[in-house]
Amino acid sequence: MKIGLLVIGSEVLDGKVTDLNTKILSEFLRTEYLEIHEAMTARDSDAAIKHGLKTLLSRNDLVITTGGLGPTRDDITKESMASLLGKKIIFSKEAQEISEENYKKFDRPFPGKEHGYCYLPEGFKPLSNSSGFAPGFSYKDQDKIIISAPGVPREFKSILEDHLMNLISDRVDKSTFLDTLMVRTKGIPEEKIFNEVDPELWEKLEAFGEVSSLPVLMGVDIRVKLKSDSVEKISSLVSAAREVFENSPIKSSIWNYGNETLEEKIVRIANNNQIKFGFAESATGGLCSHRITNIPGSSNCLMGSVVCYDEKVKQGILGVKKETLDKHTAVSLETAKEMAQGLREHLSLDIAISITGYAGPGGGNDKFPVGSVCIGSSVKDKDVKAQDFLFKGERILLKERFAQAALHTLLVELEIFASR
Amino acid sequence: MKIGLLVIGSEVLDGKVTDLNTKILSEFLRTEYLEIHEAMTARDSDAAIKHGLKTLLSRNDLVITTGGLGPTRDDITKESMASLLGKKIIFSKEAQEISEENYKKFDRPFPGKEHGYCYLPEGFKPLSNSSGFAPGFSYKDQDKIIISAPGVPREFKSILEDHLMNLISDRVDKSTFLDTLMVRTKGIPEEKIFNEVDPELWEKLEAFGEVSSLPVLMGVDIRVKLKSDSVEKISSLVSAAREVFENSPIKSSIWNYGNETLEEKIVRIANNNQIKFGFAESATGGLCSHRITNIPGSSNCLMGSVVCYDEKVKQGILGVKKETLDKHTAVSLETAKEMAQGLREHLSLDIAISITGYAGPGGGNDKFPVGSVCIGSSVKDKDVKAQDFLFKGERILLKERFAQAALHTLLVELEIFASR
Repeated sequence: MKIGLLVIGSEVLDGKVTDLNTKILSEFLRTEYLEIHEAMTARDSDAAIKHGLKTLLSRNDLVITTGGLGPTRDDITKESMASLLGKKIIFSKEAQEISEENYKKFDRPFPGKEHGYCYLPEGFKPLSNSSGFAPGFSYKDQDKIIISAPGVPREFKSILEDHLMNLISDRVDKSTFLDTLMVRTKGIPEEKIFNEVDPELWEKLEAFGEVSSLPVLMGVDIRVKLKSDSVEKISSLVSAAREVFENSPIKSSIWNYGNETLEEKIVRIANNNQIKFGFAESATGGLCSHRITNIPGSSNCLMGSVVCYDEKVKQGILGVKKETLDKHTAVSLETAKEMAQGLREHLSLDIAISITGYAGPGGGNDKFPVGSVCIGSSVKDKDVKAQDFLFKGERILLKERFAQAALHTLLVELEIFASR
Repeated sequence: MKIGLLVIGSEVLDGKVTDLNTKILSEFLRTEYLEIHEAMTARDSDAAIKHGLKTLLSRNDLVITTGGLGPTRDDITKESMASLLGKKIIFSKEAQEISEENYKKFDRPFPGKEHGYCYLPEGFKPLSNSSGFAPGFSYKDQDKIIISAPGVPREFKSILEDHLMNLISDRVDKSTFLDTLMVRTKGIPEEKIFNEVDPELWEKLEAFGEVSSLPVLMGVDIRVKLKSDSVEKISSLVSAAREVFENSPIKSSIWNYGNETLEEKIVRIANNNQIKFGFAESATGGLCSHRITNIPGSSNCLMGSVVCYDEKVKQGILGVKKETLDKHTAVSLETAKEMAQGLREHLSLDIAISITGYAGPGGGNDKFPVGSVCIGSSVKDKDVKAQDFLFKGERILLKERFAQAALHTLLVELEIFASR
């Protein structure tokens, strides 16, 4: 089944909003062994929406649209779709019931059956929306299926979860299963992996399926897409492809097999082993803690952190010595060590990680220019350590790289601690 | 000039990466009074790239592509483009020079002139890339321009900044200028603004140009797109459209005119008035501090913050009383007040904002279910206050809403403090 996605919204093309629904749809489809074939983004204009719909319908079995279902006058998805398909827009009792139910759920008065939410193109079915006001809708003829959902990411996701598989299951080709082996490496550039470390890797992997390589923060994600006619066969293909990596010289740079993120892996290992940790964040300004606290269950392992931009905070809360700051400055291995040590002792942690550096645009010196970061780690019953790194990029990217380096440092310490 | 964007990369359609280049391009174009007409996303397959290019070239004057220029075998943008246009790929001395220069800049050995970076379709020009290894390239005939840049956001941005206007300035229609008035409101749902608070607003604004309304975290952004034949006229149009808002009952809900973000406005006001602040973050887990520290210059106003997930951190660093936690629990107005007060005194701040709540999925009680947050503010020489809010959503969205509410609380206190 070929699936096309039409993202509708001038706000996306005007950069006011970043489209998150492509990711939401692809993650949903992956669990069903399906994928997005192609996507288009259209402005909120009748001509643009019609062009997008027409192009995608001519090349796909299912077209999913997101956006343009709201209550304001720039929301015209329904009208453009009806006009393209030559349908009248008519009152729908079912759409009215869904809308009334939605208003009730949010304790807001229902505006009445004249509201646009109660009208649909002839032959379309309304779809309940468990996270918002606007109903979605669907259309099915012998060849094609159209599903339209609101653009708000959580509403889009609800409609996928509540309706998508019901609407398409009779059309899905049950004889093909797709799966992906994702292998995450760190520390070696893409070109070096495939040209120097293991020049045969790509070819060996291609024997299993389509290979792709994606540079990410401080590393490379390598993916192999596998296809088979049964769920059992596909899982043995995944194992065989994984063995290629385990026999490759790249093995020592692999930090994960599978889709688990760095922060998910950290929280899982820490909670399984009851390890308590925290961050003393200067240059990352809270980003390490933010990433960890996005993961459910993180309150069991992240006890607390200190964002210490000002020197007085480094001294007052973390107990960094004034002499250390005067002699070595705030960005130094010595300060990083005292920050980590101070935090760990103050909060009685098993592991404390500290980050101090220059994210720019100002600051920096000859020894540590903008892009430099010192990362310290203090682990219970072990000596405190610190290491410096130099990255390229602008402020926000540098913060991301500093945080990635700090989280990788934490992961290594967690794995050692867990195996004690 | 109609501009189409082709995003090339299976990783985007597979949800491994969120496309940021649409936003980067639209923000760049806005400063030149231009905009993206439409966008497509294609997999790394020859057929998909050709379909995207062909469709966009037939409807636009300029097509910009991003992605598929790297060194691995899934990078085939150049080959597909050459094949579509019927061009051979040939060695380019100029591309070799650019590539050699790039390797030198990053202190890496140049792989030699057999490297793919030194080859281009006939008639194409290489474009230097100040942030990475792969050169971009461009093509121009009588009707159309193609510009291809790598998919890594900072490299894409560099190529736009270094080359785009040079390549297109002779084709840009200098008789039309576009500008946008952006008005940011908070606290009132979209439907209520246009149906109850000011039912005539939309029509009044439409007299100036295309109107759009976008629900955002805790508010609505309203935009009016203006068009004129001179820069002077367009700025007086912006003022006139702004007056419509200033005479509307919606005025009291407007927190900003223009594109400035909440965190940019906070840092600007704090620095202009030398106000020092910090956060005691429980439920937001570092997100408030992270958002503020993304802004250059924030180290002059954000002194420090404490991420206090554990009760011992609330007590030990912030000085929240054990009796308060026992009697009222960690999520309560009383605890929020003591957190803010404790942080402000401990760090000698002018303003401290505290956040404690239930982001879920676990936690919560009858009084404060998941989605509840208490936000406290302690301001120098004033009584400490706290207020509770209830939001809907999942963990990550709730963190975002809690942080937005906390930053809005901070902005209000900053504006009062600055006017003392």
